[in-house]
Amino acid sequence: MLTRVRAYLSAEKADAIIVPSNDPHFGEYVQEHYCTRALLSGFDGSAGTLVITLSEAALWTDSRYFIQAGTQLQGTGIELMKMGVEGVPDIASWLNDRIDNGGTILLDGTLFSAAEYASYCNKLKARVMGIADPFDDILPERTPLYFRPVILQKESYAGLSVAAKRKLVFSEDPTDIKICRILVRCDDIMWLCNIRGSDIDYNPVALSYALVFRDRILLFANGESFEEAALDYLSSQQVEILAYSSFYDVCEEMAGDDSIHFLSPATSTSMRLESIFAKAKHFSYEPRAEGEVAYRKSIKNQVELEGFRKANLLDGIAWCRILKYIEDNISGGTLNEYSIARQLIAYRSTSPYYRGESFEPIVALNANAASAHYSATSDEEAAVVTAQGFLLIDTGAHYPFGTTDTTRTIPLSELTPTQIADYTAVLKGMIELSMASFVKGTTGYQLDIIARQPLLSRGRLFFHGTGHGIGHYLCVHEGPQSVRMDRDSGVALLPGMVLSNEPALYLEGEYGIRTENVLVVEPFTENEFGTFYRFDTLTLVPIETSCIDREQLGDECVRWLNDYHDNLYKKIAPHLNDEEAKWLKNKCRPI
Amino acid sequence: MLTRVRAYLSAEKADAIIVPSNDPHFGEYVQEHYCTRALLSGFDGSAGTLVITLSEAALWTDSRYFIQAGTQLQGTGIELMKMGVEGVPDIASWLNDRIDNGGTILLDGTLFSAAEYASYCNKLKARVMGIADPFDDILPERTPLYFRPVILQKESYAGLSVAAKRKLVFSEDPTDIKICRILVRCDDIMWLCNIRGSDIDYNPVALSYALVFRDRILLFANGESFEEAALDYLSSQQVEILAYSSFYDVCEEMAGDDSIHFLSPATSTSMRLESIFAKAKHFSYEPRAEGEVAYRKSIKNQVELEGFRKANLLDGIAWCRILKYIEDNISGGTLNEYSIARQLIAYRSTSPYYRGESFEPIVALNANAASAHYSATSDEEAAVVTAQGFLLIDTGAHYPFGTTDTTRTIPLSELTPTQIADYTAVLKGMIELSMASFVKGTTGYQLDIIARQPLLSRGRLFFHGTGHGIGHYLCVHEGPQSVRMDRDSGVALLPGMVLSNEPALYLEGEYGIRTENVLVVEPFTENEFGTFYRFDTLTLVPIETSCIDREQLGDECVRWLNDYHDNLYKKIAPHLNDEEAKWLKNKCRPI
Repeated sequence: MLTRVRAYLSAEKADAIIVPSNDPHFGEYVQEHYCTRALLSGFDGSAGTLVITLSEAALWTDSRYFIQAGTQLQGTGIELMKMGVEGVPDIASWLNDRIDNGGTILLDGTLFSAAEYASYCNKLKARVMGIADPFDDILPERTPLYFRPVILQKESYAGLSVAAKRKLVFSEDPTDIKICRILVRCDDIMWLCNIRGSDIDYNPVALSYALVFRDRILLFANGESFEEAALDYLSSQQVEILAYSSFYDVCEEMAGDDSIHFLSPATSTSMRLESIFAKAKHFSYEPRAEGEVAYRKSIKNQVELEGFRKANLLDGIAWCRILKYIEDNISGGTLNEYSIARQLIAYRSTSPYYRGESFEPIVALNANAASAHYSATSDEEAAVVTAQGFLLIDTGAHYPFGTTDTTRTIPLSELTPTQIADYTAVLKGMIELSMASFVKGTTGYQLDIIARQPLLSRGRLFFHGTGHGIGHYLCVHEGPQSVRMDRDSGVALLPGMVLSNEPALYLEGEYGIRTENVLVVEPFTENEFGTFYRFDTLTLVPIETSCIDREQLGDECVRWLNDYHDNLYKKIAPHLNDEEAKWLKNKCRPI
Repeated sequence: MLTRVRAYLSAEKADAIIVPSNDPHFGEYVQEHYCTRALLSGFDGSAGTLVITLSEAALWTDSRYFIQAGTQLQGTGIELMKMGVEGVPDIASWLNDRIDNGGTILLDGTLFSAAEYASYCNKLKARVMGIADPFDDILPERTPLYFRPVILQKESYAGLSVAAKRKLVFSEDPTDIKICRILVRCDDIMWLCNIRGSDIDYNPVALSYALVFRDRILLFANGESFEEAALDYLSSQQVEILAYSSFYDVCEEMAGDDSIHFLSPATSTSMRLESIFAKAKHFSYEPRAEGEVAYRKSIKNQVELEGFRKANLLDGIAWCRILKYIEDNISGGTLNEYSIARQLIAYRSTSPYYRGESFEPIVALNANAASAHYSATSDEEAAVVTAQGFLLIDTGAHYPFGTTDTTRTIPLSELTPTQIADYTAVLKGMIELSMASFVKGTTGYQLDIIARQPLLSRGRLFFHGTGHGIGHYLCVHEGPQSVRMDRDSGVALLPGMVLSNEPALYLEGEYGIRTENVLVVEPFTENEFGTFYRFDTLTLVPIETSCIDREQLGDECVRWLNDYHDNLYKKIAPHLNDEEAKWLKNKCRPI
C-alpha cells in the first residue's frame, strides 16, 4: 500500500504525506473508513500519526502504544517513533531533515485544525499543502463510509425542543446580525437536533455537519437513515437535511454571502474550513474555544439531570448484581476479566432502556490495572480472576435518559498495609472533591488538587485528569469543562455540569486503584461574599469499605461515605430481590 | 498647583497628563519625592491615578479608598472616579470623551510599563507622548529626592557573594553571547549586590538601578551614602558605582553596542527603557516575566533560611510578650490599638538585631479589622481595646538575617457559635495549606483552594491572595511566586521559596479574622511518580486555641496544631522568664 501512496505522491509532485488518526469530526472514536493510518501501517491503536515520504515512512505514537506499535509495525518498513523519549525527533524536525525548501508535503485539510496546520507551516521548511481526502482512489480496499439508523431523541428525554436550544445558543449574540454557527462535532449536532445515531462505536452519534442559524439549521447527514419520527420532528423544528457529502460545497457557496457572520469553534475548525471561510466577509472564532453549542450542551437541564439520576439507578442495580456475582463466584476459578465484563452487560441488558456501553469495559486484575486503557477482548487473553489482590472495573452504559461512567476497585484478598493506605488515599481524594464547595468562576484546574492531596501526601500521583464532562446519552468524554492539573480549560464550573471524579493510583507491575463517581454541579448559597456551588453525586454503586483505613480517611470523609451508602441503599434496595438486598445492606453498613 | 500644570500643558501644546502613584522602580512604597499624584490632588492613599486636562481633573482609585479620597478631594475641583463601580468610565474612555484624534496626552515614560503605555496608545484616540519627569520645574515645593545610608549585607547573612549570585543569575544563559540584564527594582539590586538601604519606608532598599553583566555590575546609586565597608566589598565584587541620575544616559549610550544582548523583565520595563533599547541590535524580555534576578532571589539559600528561622524566633519572643501583655492589661481599659502596636515595637526593640517594622503594623478591633489595611496612627484615632470580640494583629519586622510577617486574631471575650465556626474555618484553611504536599511544577494558583475550602464550605470567601513571597531582610511582599485564586503567576513553587499563608474572613461592620504563618517550601520525596515538595512553617507565635471548634477543625489539623505548639514552646520558652514561660506553656497545651 505504501508503494501506491508513493506513486500518488510522485504523480502529485509531492514529497510526503502526513496521515493522522482522527476524522473530520474531531471526535474520540473514528469510523473504520477514516482509519487510513491503521490501514496503511497495520498499527491500530487509537493514537498515532503516520508520515510517508518517497523512500521512508515513520509512525509517531505515545508511551501507551510503544509495545503494540512495535509489534504491529514489524516488517512494514515503517519506523516507530516513540514520542516523549529523549532523542526521538518530532514530525517536523524529522521531515526537515529529509525535505527542503523546494519540497511539498501533503495533508488532508479536513483532518487538521487550522492551528495544527499553521504550526506545521511555521515549522516545516517545505511547502505544506492541504488536500481533499485522497485515499478513495489509492486504497480501494478501504471500508466504505456507512450510515446507520438515526432516531429521534424525544423531548421528554432532552428537556428542550430544538427551537428552544437554538434560542439558548444565540441568547448572548447581538440580534441585529445574521449569525451562522459552523458545527463539525457530531455530538454537538446530536444534542442540538435532538437525534441520536450509531455510526461510531460507543458514541451514539450520526456522522453529520451542521450550519446553524437563529431560525433554522442546515443538517448535513444521510437523510435515508433517519426514522420517520425524526424526519417529522426535524422538519417541525426548522431543520433541513442536506447530503452529508455536500457540506463543504455548501460552505463554499455560503461563504460568498456578505450578510452572514460565520462563527466556528477554534478547537474544531479544520484547515479546510478555515480556508473556505477566509474568503467570507465576516468570519471569526467562537468566543468560547469549544463553541457555544458545546458550552450550552455541557449545562444539563432539569429533565436531563433527572434522566442521569434514573440512568445511574438502573446502572447501580446492574453494578450491585455484578459485584455480588464476583463475590459469589470468586473462589470457583471460573471468572476472568472478559467474562465479568460480559456478565455486567448481561445484567444491564435486563433493562429495556439499556442502549449499550458508553466505552469499552475495563476489567483489570492487579498489574493489568496498572496499564492505562487495558481491556481484555476475549476469554483467551483475559486473566483468570482469583482471590488475590485488586480487581479494577471501569465501565459505563448509555440509556436514552443519560450516560454513566463508574469505576470500582475490589479487594479480592487480605491486603497489605500499603495497599490499604493506597486504596484509602484514592478514596479520600474522591470524597474530598465530592465535598468541595467553590465560588462562581472557579475552574476544574483550581479544584483538581483537592482530589490529589491525599495521594500527594504519600508522595504518589496519577497522571490522567481527575474529571471529564459526560454527555447526556452522548459521548462519555465531553467538553468543555474538566478537572485536570496539566491544563486549564478556562471553563468555570456551573450548575448543571456533569463531571467524573476519578482519582487513581497505578503501580507498574503491581496494581491499579481507581474509584470513580459522577458529580453534578449544583447551587449551594448566595450571599454578600458571592455565589457558591457544590457537587451532588449521581453514581449509586457501593464502594468497598473492607479495605479502608478509617483513621486515614478521617471523620468528615467517613461521614460522607456512610451517608452515601445510606442513600444508595434506600434507592437501590427496592429494585433487588431479598438475597441481593441483604447483600447490599451489608455492603452499605456504616463504618 | 493644577493651574501650573495646565500652564505647562499649554506651553507643551498638550491636552492632558496622566499622573500615576508609582516611582520608576515599580516598588510597593514610594519616596515622597515621587508622590506627585498625592501632592497635586491632596489624596495620599497608596493607589490612585490622576488625570489633568486643560479644564478638568479626575482621580481614579479603588474601593479601599473611596471614603478617604472623597474627603481629601473635596474642594480641589478633582472629580473622584470610583473604579469598579457600574457606570464609572475608565481613564481611556473618559479621556476619549474629551480629547480627540488631534490631541496629545502626556505621561512620564519612566512610570508606565511598556505594556501599559501600549495599552493607552491602543485605547486612546489622542497621541500619547512619553516625557521625562516634568514636575521639578512645575512643583518647586516637591520634596527633593534623598539618599540615606547604604550598608553592606554581610555574606554571613546573605549566604552568597555577589560574584556567586552573578554566576547563579547567568547559569541558564548561553555562554557565547554578552548579556546585560537591566534592573530597576531596588530589592533585586539590593539582593544581588549584598547591600541594604533606607530610602523607602519599610523596604530596606536604596534607590538604584543596575546593568548586570556576567563579569561585572554597573550600579547606579548615590555612592556618597554608602558605608566604607560596602564600597570596599562592592569594588572587590566587580560592582562599579555610577551616579543614580546617569542611568538613562548610560543606557542610551550602551544601547548602541551591537555586541550586547539586553534582557529586561517584562513587568518592570518602563516605556522609556523600552524606547531606549528598541534601538539596540539585541533586546528582549527576560524569559521569566519578573526576571532572572527576582526568580533567583525568591529561592532562599540555606544561610538565608537559617536567618529566617532566627528572625522568627526573635519575633516569636516579642509576640509572646505582646500577647501576654494584652491579656494582662485587657481589663484595665488602658489599651488601644495604637498603644499595642507601639508596645510590640518596644518588645522587638529589646533585640539588638531589630531593624524596624516590615510594614505598617495593623492592630484592629472588631469592625476595624473588617476594613482592608486599617491602621491606627495615633492614640486619638485608635479604638480602646476592651474585653469584647476579636482583636486582629498583623505585623512583621526586619532583622538583618530575615523578615517576618505574622497575623493573629485574639478573642477578647466569649464568642458566639458563628464566631467560633468562622475562626475555626480560617485556622483550618491555614493548617490545611501548611500540611499540603505537591509535585514539582505546581503553582500557588493550584494550591490556593486548599486554604479556602473550609471557608467555602461555609459559603464564605476572602478576596485577597492567600500568600505572597517574603524577602530576606527585604520587601515583605516579594514576587514572583504567590498563592492566589484571581491570577496564576505561572511560577512553580520550589524548595527555598518563602511564602505567607494567610486565609481570612471579613464581615463588614462586625469583625475580621486572619491567621497568618510563614512557610518555606522544602523537598519531600522523589520517586517513580516524580519530585514532591511540602511546606515547613517558620513562624513561632502561639495560635489562640480557646475559640476552636475541635470537631470542625478535624483530627489531622488538631494534630498539626498540637505539634506546632509543642515545637514552638520548646524553641521559645528558653528565652522567656519563668512567668512568661508558664504563660506560654498554658497557651501551647494540646487541645
